[in-house]
Amino acid sequence: MKIGKVSATVVATVEAPLFEDHRLLLCDLLDDDGNPTGGYVIASDFVGAGAGETVLILDEGNSARMIAGLDRGPLRAVIVGIVDEVDRDGDSWA
Amino acid sequence: MKIGKVSATVVATVEAPLFEDHRLLLCDLLDDDGNPTGGYVIASDFVGAGAGETVLILDEGNSARMIAGLDRGPLRAVIVGIVDEVDRDGDSWA
Amino acid sequence: MKIGKVSATVVATVEAPLFEDHRLLLCDLLDDDGNPTGGYVIASDFVGAGAGETVLILDEGNSARMIAGLDRGPLRAVIVGIVDEVDRDGDSWA
Amino acid sequence: MKIGKVSATVVATVEAPLFEDHRLLLCDLLDDDGNPTGGYVIASDFVGAGAGETVLILDEGNSARMIAGLDRGPLRAVIVGIVDEVDRDGDSWA
Amino acid sequence: MKIGKVSATVVATVEAPLFEDHRLLLCDLLDDDGNPTGGYVIASDFVGAGAGETVLILDEGNSARMIAGLDRGPLRAVIVGIVDEVDRDGDSWA
Repeated sequence: MKIGKVSATVVATVEAPLFEDHRLLLCDLLDDDGNPTGGYVIASDFVGAGAGETVLILDEGNSARMIAGLDRGPLRAVIVGIVDEVDRDGDSWA
Repeated sequence: MKIGKVSATVVATVEAPLFEDHRLLLCDLLDDDGNPTGGYVIASDFVGAGAGETVLILDEGNSARMIAGLDRGPLRAVIVGIVDEVDRDGDSWA
Repeated sequence: MKIGKVSATVVATVEAPLFEDHRLLLCDLLDDDGNPTGGYVIASDFVGAGAGETVLILDEGNSARMIAGLDRGPLRAVIVGIVDEVDRDGDSWA
Repeated sequence: MKIGKVSATVVATVEAPLFEDHRLLLCDLLDDDGNPTGGYVIASDFVGAGAGETVLILDEGNSARMIAGLDRGPLRAVIVGIVDEVDRDGDSWA
Repeated sequence: MKIGKVSATVVATVEAPLFEDHRLLLCDLLDDDGNPTGGYVIASDFVGAGAGETVLILDEGNSARMIAGLDRGPLRAVIVGIVDEVDRDGDSWA
């Protein structure tokens, strides 16, 4: 999984009902100290994440479909959780 | 998913009927501010995207086949939508 | 597979029972001499790895589900072993 | 898909009949202007591509097996076509 | 597929019988001239490759399981052959 920060909403007309129910969020990927790496992932939101929140992103088709409760569906990356804390021997960020 | 800008059409003889019906478009990948990253993806067009349009690309085999309505088919990356807007707290591009 | 060093614990509320039983560990990826590459993977721990331990990470959905004994489950990267030794003609590290 | 230029033949004894019938070609990957990126892919040739030809490479296991007409088979990247032209508003290369 | 050079053996206790029968080899990835790229892959050895040998690595879960003769198994990258020669118009290496 990857850690990202929700930084934008992507508005696009996608011919698949799945996308009507779940916003597409652009997440800036973070390094292991919480700093942006420069990369990003566009993920379907399944936890109601807000702008600026640190999230956990699962980037694998079959897993994404399982989170969405679908056998079939055009889905690869999903936001599966909001990060409470990344704890390194008591020194933590999120 | 990724965001790209349609920049060229790829003409090639591919031994799979699927490719007769859907153009192969070379999309320059964009970063989270809309600038080219230098990378690209060649994707099958399922939305009738035009040159210069900002598009949403789904790069996963099973998802691509689902968009194409196929159980089986040699497909990995597909254009699934035209981006209307990437909105970052009211500051948007597309 | 990849070699990593367990460097942090990720605490997040993830809507899948699987994550209740297996901690999410942030592993700094190591190069072939054992030095950090700068990249990381967040993997579910299936061997009880501790902070600072050198581990073997399998980063593939179907394999991860097999290690977890699941037919279906939102899982991509798992820690599958603790590295005892990386041996290069008698010169080894771990 | 990716665009590459056939630059070498890889001769290796691989314990799978599939590889007896289809040559393994090392393809230098090209950027969107047709220049080498420095990366390469080794792909099984299904179109009879020759040295120096610009080819279309599909790098996904299930798709590769479909091109080969196999339900099961150790295959990930295949050459699926010879690029006639990459056309960017009338300015083209191949 | 990728070309690598066997550079080390990885010794780790992995809770899957498959790993008892096949050594885990750390392979330094080579570029198209045979020089190390700096990257590596840890692959299960299915051909009895020795240290320093140039090998062909297949890095895809379903393919790896087929090489291992398994329907299910935690496997992603396997060594499938020993490279005899990489031939570029008569100029070859291995």
